[in-house]
Amino acid sequence: MADMDMSKLSPSEARAMFRKNEWVKPTSGISEGYAQANLAIMHKELAFDFLLFCQRNPKPCPVLDVTEPGSPVPTIAAPSADLRTDVPKYRIYRHGELDSEVTDLMDVWEDDLVAFVLGCSFTFEFPLMKNGIPVRQIEEHCNVPMFKTNIQCVPAGRFHGPMVVSMRPIPEKDVVRAVEVTSRFPAVHGSPVQIGNPEHIGIKDIHHPDFGDPVTIKDGEIPVFWACGVTPQAVAMAVKPDLMITHAPGHMFITDLKEARLGVL
Amino acid sequence: MADMDMSKLSPSEARAMFRKNEWVKPTSGISEGYAQANLAIMHKELAFDFLLFCQRNPKPCPVLDVTEPGSPVPTIAAPSADLRTDVPKYRIYRHGELDSEVTDLMDVWEDDLVAFVLGCSFTFEFPLMKNGIPVRQIEEHCNVPMFKTNIQCVPAGRFHGPMVVSMRPIPEKDVVRAVEVTSRFPAVHGSPVQIGNPEHIGIKDIHHPDFGDPVTIKDGEIPVFWACGVTPQAVAMAVKPDLMITHAPGHMFITDLKEARLGVL
Repeated sequence: MADMDMSKLSPSEARAMFRKNEWVKPTSGISEGYAQANLAIMHKELAFDFLLFCQRNPKPCPVLDVTEPGSPVPTIAAPSADLRTDVPKYRIYRHGELDSEVTDLMDVWEDDLVAFVLGCSFTFEFPLMKNGIPVRQIEEHCNVPMFKTNIQCVPAGRFHGPMVVSMRPIPEKDVVRAVEVTSRFPAVHGSPVQIGNPEHIGIKDIHHPDFGDPVTIKDGEIPVFWACGVTPQAVAMAVKPDLMITHAPGHMFITDLKEARLGVL
Repeated sequence: MADMDMSKLSPSEARAMFRKNEWVKPTSGISEGYAQANLAIMHKELAFDFLLFCQRNPKPCPVLDVTEPGSPVPTIAAPSADLRTDVPKYRIYRHGELDSEVTDLMDVWEDDLVAFVLGCSFTFEFPLMKNGIPVRQIEEHCNVPMFKTNIQCVPAGRFHGPMVVSMRPIPEKDVVRAVEVTSRFPAVHGSPVQIGNPEHIGIKDIHHPDFGDPVTIKDGEIPVFWACGVTPQAVAMAVKPDLMITHAPGHMFITDLKEARLGVL
């Protein structure tokens, strides 16, 4: 199916495709107008510390929903969805190391798991495009480039670690407008954390992202960095819990939450 | 000390007065430019459910800080403060009933208590006044009127209960501006939840508030209702935990957080 059609799919149609493994690819550009989301799943025993970590780090970890222990249903974000099957690809981290990538969680789900649904910056890409601002990884049909930074998150209980950011090259004349547009969406990472100086946040090579794919930066474009919901994966690598399950970077959960309802004035 | 002077006190000066019991009165109008906060303190065992309750009910329960278990220091909101002493008056709820009002918590503090510091609408009263909008309970030197409503909060774990609201009479010509101004401050309850129809949210008598004092509603003024951080007290009455400690309604904790930094664009 062409990308052009994917933008018109309803969230439940998109989730049905993911459930049947008919789309095991990044989700940028799918289901225009609906919030996309990161996933972080852990044992209940860690859930208070992680929720507090999110509260203290709202830019990388904006909470859209938290499931009841053992339930795979995000009743606020998408009450008809099943978080065990409705994401294109998952990552299972054990003791801080990436153990495997899978397309469903039916074999690993446990009765005391709590799932955190965190806003994703893919949500504000349609508003950027409507403002005439290009989104390069959609143009180039690849995943957004993501980088571990030297920005340390505010610790909470057992959780600590570096912030991960996504990068989009923005024409210099559009940078201020890109800040304005994304500021309206704090629930999906909001305004950028860095503009134009990757080395100031510990990024050594803009062409070799830690997650996702490199994209072209054209003459006159400025790399702009937004906090990213892959941060819990960097945190898992730092904190090494027995188990943390996440989406695979760029392979998001698509919620029923309307982008417009998440926007501030 | 006259109210006029209290608005110029720094937060630490105001807290020092509260600590010495030199001001055991409502705090509306004190320390202009700094966020005021509600308090909800409970055993660690309840903290995840309550934090999730706050996440699901951000209008009545906007989280500004959460302490480490056993620590009375809100390291983000006011790192030099002590939550056991720095509030003018506290309420101790046991098994869902108001047990006592005290001016410090030194005798009741326990090693596993977690304190939630929640934004208070007193914070946006200076911005309202700067916009030429009167704040009646400051004019009348009394506490803001607060009402239990029939709006049910979104439950989370063991927590559920009705939303409490504060009321300010606003001249009809200023109602839209009052919505605009307060919308900029989601961290201190944000925009109103009801305008002009108290009976639609279960308020039977606008002149007999459930908490605080009645205020004059002049001809041509509309009662406007904002979500209120006394909500956890109504929740305590509904859920009946062994222990919940709060501020006394209107007697707030004054943080070091600058009002301007809490405002959105």
